[in-house]
Amino acid sequence: LLCSATTRAAEKDHLLPSWNHTPARQAIIDFVAKVTDPHSPDFVPAADRIATFDNDGTLWTEHPMYTQMAFAIDRVKTLASKHPDWKDQQPYKAVLENDLQALGESGKKGLVELILASHTDITTTDFEAVVKEWFATHRHPRFDQPYTQCTYKPMVELLAYLRANGFRTFIVSGGGIEFMRPITLDCYGIPPEQVVGTTIKTRFEMQDGKPVLMRLPEINFIDDHDGKPVGINQFIGKRPIASFGNSGGDREMLQWTSAGEGLSLKMLVFHDDAKREYAYGPANGLPDTKFGAFPQDLMEEAEQSGWVVISMKDDWETIFTFEE
Amino acid sequence: LLCSATTRAAEKDHLLPSWNHTPARQAIIDFVAKVTDPHSPDFVPAADRIATFDNDGTLWTEHPMYTQMAFAIDRVKTLASKHPDWKDQQPYKAVLENDLQALGESGKKGLVELILASHTDITTTDFEAVVKEWFATHRHPRFDQPYTQCTYKPMVELLAYLRANGFRTFIVSGGGIEFMRPITLDCYGIPPEQVVGTTIKTRFEMQDGKPVLMRLPEINFIDDHDGKPVGINQFIGKRPIASFGNSGGDREMLQWTSAGEGLSLKMLVFHDDAKREYAYGPANGLPDTKFGAFPQDLMEEAEQSGWVVISMKDDWETIFTFEE
Ligand SMILES: [Ca+2]
Ligand SMILES: [Ca+2]
Repeated sequence: LLCSATTRAAEKDHLLPSWNHTPARQAIIDFVAKVTDPHSPDFVPAADRIATFDNDGTLWTEHPMYTQMAFAIDRVKTLASKHPDWKDQQPYKAVLENDLQALGESGKKGLVELILASHTDITTTDFEAVVKEWFATHRHPRFDQPYTQCTYKPMVELLAYLRANGFRTFIVSGGGIEFMRPITLDCYGIPPEQVVGTTIKTRFEMQDGKPVLMRLPEINFIDDHDGKPVGINQFIGKRPIASFGNSGGDREMLQWTSAGEGLSLKMLVFHDDAKREYAYGPANGLPDTKFGAFPQDLMEEAEQSGWVVISMKDDWETIFTFEE
Repeated sequence: LLCSATTRAAEKDHLLPSWNHTPARQAIIDFVAKVTDPHSPDFVPAADRIATFDNDGTLWTEHPMYTQMAFAIDRVKTLASKHPDWKDQQPYKAVLENDLQALGESGKKGLVELILASHTDITTTDFEAVVKEWFATHRHPRFDQPYTQCTYKPMVELLAYLRANGFRTFIVSGGGIEFMRPITLDCYGIPPEQVVGTTIKTRFEMQDGKPVLMRLPEINFIDDHDGKPVGINQFIGKRPIASFGNSGGDREMLQWTSAGEGLSLKMLVFHDDAKREYAYGPANGLPDTKFGAFPQDLMEEAEQSGWVVISMKDDWETIFTFEE
């Protein structure tokens, strides 16, 4: 008996090996122990063990820009020969001239236009092939690794640990659903039907007697901020008992998770490690950013609500999957 | 070896026990054998074994009217005291006076209005409770059984058989997603995130400091006809290799399934058993219907395309789950 207890303790020591032995890791292990123990007052049946994860900045790196934005920029360059007008027209001109300042000035409206121009007017099948090809041939500019290797090893371990404990794991991201789905099974062990994200409208039509789905230049649903609980309800139909994010866009998802009846776990990744990854806030005086801002009032809400803030610097022994 | 082959044959005899030993049952068993045998040229990895099922008329009975319509009528009657104007206003007047002819005359527009009036202006959590309560307290008018027992036993067996062979099974229904989700796990073994259906818009808001999702009186997405492939792509993100329906509304889903690369199975339930259930077409000269019509040109497309038509009368030994 003593021996078995010792073995279990040793096993526990080896859980989540890329996490330092800090309170963040302990919060995860304690939560999982409580909700999976049938004798615990906090027990949750496996059918209700839903965990939702933001993607950019929570599961993989989002700097120097969102990966999907890097894709959109490359794709606009690829498509430019078919659109001669783009060279004089913003935001395309900025992309073609690598003018990041003009691109930033085009704002959210410019970004949406770039996404639509680069992600639509193509069948879903062809778009999937384009995305796969891009991931196979492009690397992160700083880490010089495939983007699919720039995932956070501690979070990939956490996903697997939750699934091993009967959880179903979902991505709930502001990113485009069909940009993520081609890679989430390999990257995270998450199949396409467990990816919730921003969608554009599609239309069923016959081309040469074969049915296709055409991607239309129209946003269908934005899965960010208050869209995250809406997306969770629409796609999953069950409230999560654990959710994980890293920015203001995840606030409502964590609030929605908190409002459930039983015990729940809410965590936010805080990027405070400029040396190994990036450091940005503006919370806690870190530099502000256009990609995944963590505002000070989110930090305060986290403290008041018992949401666990993960310090990348202190809580993670290893950062990236490619470091293996 | 001989002994083991005999055992296997005996086991095969007992598969899908509510199905008669006809070509329809054999088509299922042959298909599953081919796609699950790693040495077969038609082998499909488990990750790609997606099966989609229409609900009304495919998994449970849809006559004398869609179950959701029976719910909407009851709910309009319950809510009528709060809406005194309804007693002079169609289609509510027809509902309150049990005037089925006037109700029919209000057409699709009237039906949508009834659905919106009876399904919205309520939080998602409260609506789920209303649906559960209704199912617990109402019975099918002809069979005098809970609606949740008026599922087709052969199809429930088929769902389980596919899952036992590594398939993931999804509902893809024109019905309301939040009308089905409270019961699909018990009825079919299908969790809420594997239910695709028609959705109405919801809005995240704070009520007394607690986040809720309000159901708004606005259709978000109609999961029928060409909406089925669109919904499959949006929710599942993978093309099914098997799909099952019973009416014109399933045509595009079956076409979409057929257009995949490998072997696929497409089946349509044909209601030709007035004695044990209902008989309606208008295909093959059976009476036309407002609920789940199977037009003659769908019968012809099925024949030309190799879609298997299931004769309820000839192919099913047992019809209903409640017959156990
Ligand atoms: Ca994020
Ligand atoms: Ca149907």
